[in-house]
Amino acid sequence: MQKSDNNIINLFEKSNPGFHKCKIAESINMKRGGSLSNPVLAYETWGKLSSTKDNVIVILTGLSASSHVASNLSNPAPGWWDGMVGKNKAFDIDKYYIICINSLGSCFGSTGPASINEITGEPYRLTFPELTIDDMAQATKLLLDKLEIDHIHTLVGPSMGGMHALALLVQNSNLVKNFIAISTARQSLPYSIAIRSLQREVIRKDPLWKNGYYSHENPPSNGVRIARKLGMLSYRSADEWAQRFGRKRSSKAEITQNTFGIENTGFEFEIESYLEHLAIKFQDVFDANSYLYLSRAIDWFDLIDYGSSPEKVLGNTTLTNALVLGVKTDTLFPISQQKELAECLSSGSTKAIYKSLDCIQGHDSFLVDLEIFTKEIKCFLENI
Amino acid sequence: MQKSDNNIINLFEKSNPGFHKCKIAESINMKRGGSLSNPVLAYETWGKLSSTKDNVIVILTGLSASSHVASNLSNPAPGWWDGMVGKNKAFDIDKYYIICINSLGSCFGSTGPASINEITGEPYRLTFPELTIDDMAQATKLLLDKLEIDHIHTLVGPSMGGMHALALLVQNSNLVKNFIAISTARQSLPYSIAIRSLQREVIRKDPLWKNGYYSHENPPSNGVRIARKLGMLSYRSADEWAQRFGRKRSSKAEITQNTFGIENTGFEFEIESYLEHLAIKFQDVFDANSYLYLSRAIDWFDLIDYGSSPEKVLGNTTLTNALVLGVKTDTLFPISQQKELAECLSSGSTKAIYKSLDCIQGHDSFLVDLEIFTKEIKCFLENI
Repeated sequence: MQKSDNNIINLFEKSNPGFHKCKIAESINMKRGGSLSNPVLAYETWGKLSSTKDNVIVILTGLSASSHVASNLSNPAPGWWDGMVGKNKAFDIDKYYIICINSLGSCFGSTGPASINEITGEPYRLTFPELTIDDMAQATKLLLDKLEIDHIHTLVGPSMGGMHALALLVQNSNLVKNFIAISTARQSLPYSIAIRSLQREVIRKDPLWKNGYYSHENPPSNGVRIARKLGMLSYRSADEWAQRFGRKRSSKAEITQNTFGIENTGFEFEIESYLEHLAIKFQDVFDANSYLYLSRAIDWFDLIDYGSSPEKVLGNTTLTNALVLGVKTDTLFPISQQKELAECLSSGSTKAIYKSLDCIQGHDSFLVDLEIFTKEIKCFLENI
Repeated sequence: MQKSDNNIINLFEKSNPGFHKCKIAESINMKRGGSLSNPVLAYETWGKLSSTKDNVIVILTGLSASSHVASNLSNPAPGWWDGMVGKNKAFDIDKYYIICINSLGSCFGSTGPASINEITGEPYRLTFPELTIDDMAQATKLLLDKLEIDHIHTLVGPSMGGMHALALLVQNSNLVKNFIAISTARQSLPYSIAIRSLQREVIRKDPLWKNGYYSHENPPSNGVRIARKLGMLSYRSADEWAQRFGRKRSSKAEITQNTFGIENTGFEFEIESYLEHLAIKFQDVFDANSYLYLSRAIDWFDLIDYGSSPEKVLGNTTLTNALVLGVKTDTLFPISQQKELAECLSSGSTKAIYKSLDCIQGHDSFLVDLEIFTKEIKCFLENI
């Protein structure tokens, strides 16, 4: 084992001030074996809890997001869904008490591979137990218990957060009244598994990954950056990029003598510079091992693991209303999977609405085409 | 400069016996600067040239293919399009004289980055001049001149081969009578540029790439293998893989203790094993530098470079008939680009037929869904 680097988690905490941290248990056992001592979840809140605690909205995040869904007093920096969470927005903080949770295994304050294992005094790294969506949901429920929340008005899950939400729903049949599933699925299919597998392989093959024992001064940045670019290919859409970039050349790129841009400058096409810019931002904040664990957890998720059929599994809950939003240009969680999820949700007593949206930005549309998402979500919340 | 490795080209020639090699000129100047001395193209033929030389079909290949389109006397191994080229097949060798050419810059016998630069006695590697589709077409025309072929009955170009064919067409307005364009485009769009850019980046970031100066005993196999997997993501389709693999676990995989499969075994899902298997085959035969050059050439291609509009450029040829075949599930060269190409081809005196095919295998459908492609091509050739 190489020299330990106890500062690894602090790096990520520094970049994300203002969240609350809660020790959710003395110890939790993980679904695929192993356990965590004194696990912690990071979360943030907006709005006020009503006296009857009937106005709780819980937002569970995609793979790469922190709990900072919107700006707040503790952290005025814009959140990843600032346009959706706030006064008079889709999730109105004058009306609802909103909790956004950083998933177990992530690197923005919650216990994950970059956290210190209290038993060894070293970061977990690859000694972190295998992580499943089920474990995330277990941890989230423990946090809600600590917060004395026993009823969720509306549970919101985009992307991986949708799987996390489904696991929470079926683990706790009476917890959730309404559910908004966004660009998610009841299981991962091989195309998306392949994309994630390749992202993980790129990270693992970065010599600086060192079987997970990288230092925070010298992390596997090439691997994480390239993995992020590959992610972007699956998060956006060809149509969007054709309209937005076409064959435009990058104005900023210093075209090097070498055709293949050995340095990180020299990307000739604007699409190449765009991806480079976004991926560099990501490589500087996301822990490589955490990425590997979260990514594999998504591959493993399958609602069928909870019962004889997804319909029966979902039919056992007391969920009243569901809104399933998907986007036609999504290649990672295709629209066919949204339709299927809505059908599964409808099979019991839940009233499920399925909407196939005409956004052009692919899987990430929920982060950018806010007008159309706001309209659908407001309409749903007003009519339940 | 590191120690030279003159055996690099022999490696690839050994894996592809039976082709002819032809020195096409004393020297050629390249479009973006630089020149090649004594350039050579590799090619293979099937059938017999008629006395009036009116039965020539020229097949230009995709990025990764050799000239070995089908088995022949010199090389009885199956070709990459064996089901399409042969007696009574779509391209009937009893009727036509078929020539398949390994593109300039490729590594299966034609002059490319792995070839010896006769002036230095060393492989070109990154001293190979910048390569364009235009240069490929120039070289192909020189080969046809050497073979005393001045009339092509039908020019066939799938994928990159379609761009190569378009360049040949517009460079030589009286050369080609009929054209079959398959899953190709008149220009590269940003989504496909991004995919290829990322493939190149993965190769370049492999420490064994060594700025192009790898040895053939120790090439950047990780980079090439991962690039190939990324290619496969763009060559096939999510629907095909959902039907074919679903969530099946790999029977052959030795699931290692480590979740992330540090070794090349341990891919848990069948889709992961499938990609690994195909990519390993590829890493062992394709030269990394050649891949970089060919890939960038595709990004650069744009028919607009030849004139004021693609319609005018194509309208200047004496092309009589064109068949443009595309596949609805193709994400690399989407069906909208096939339609557009057919419209451009129709603008002059060419009669262009556009067919949008219902194949499920994405861009690679032309290699696997042979029944539907055979039907369309036979019908086209019988009616011209």
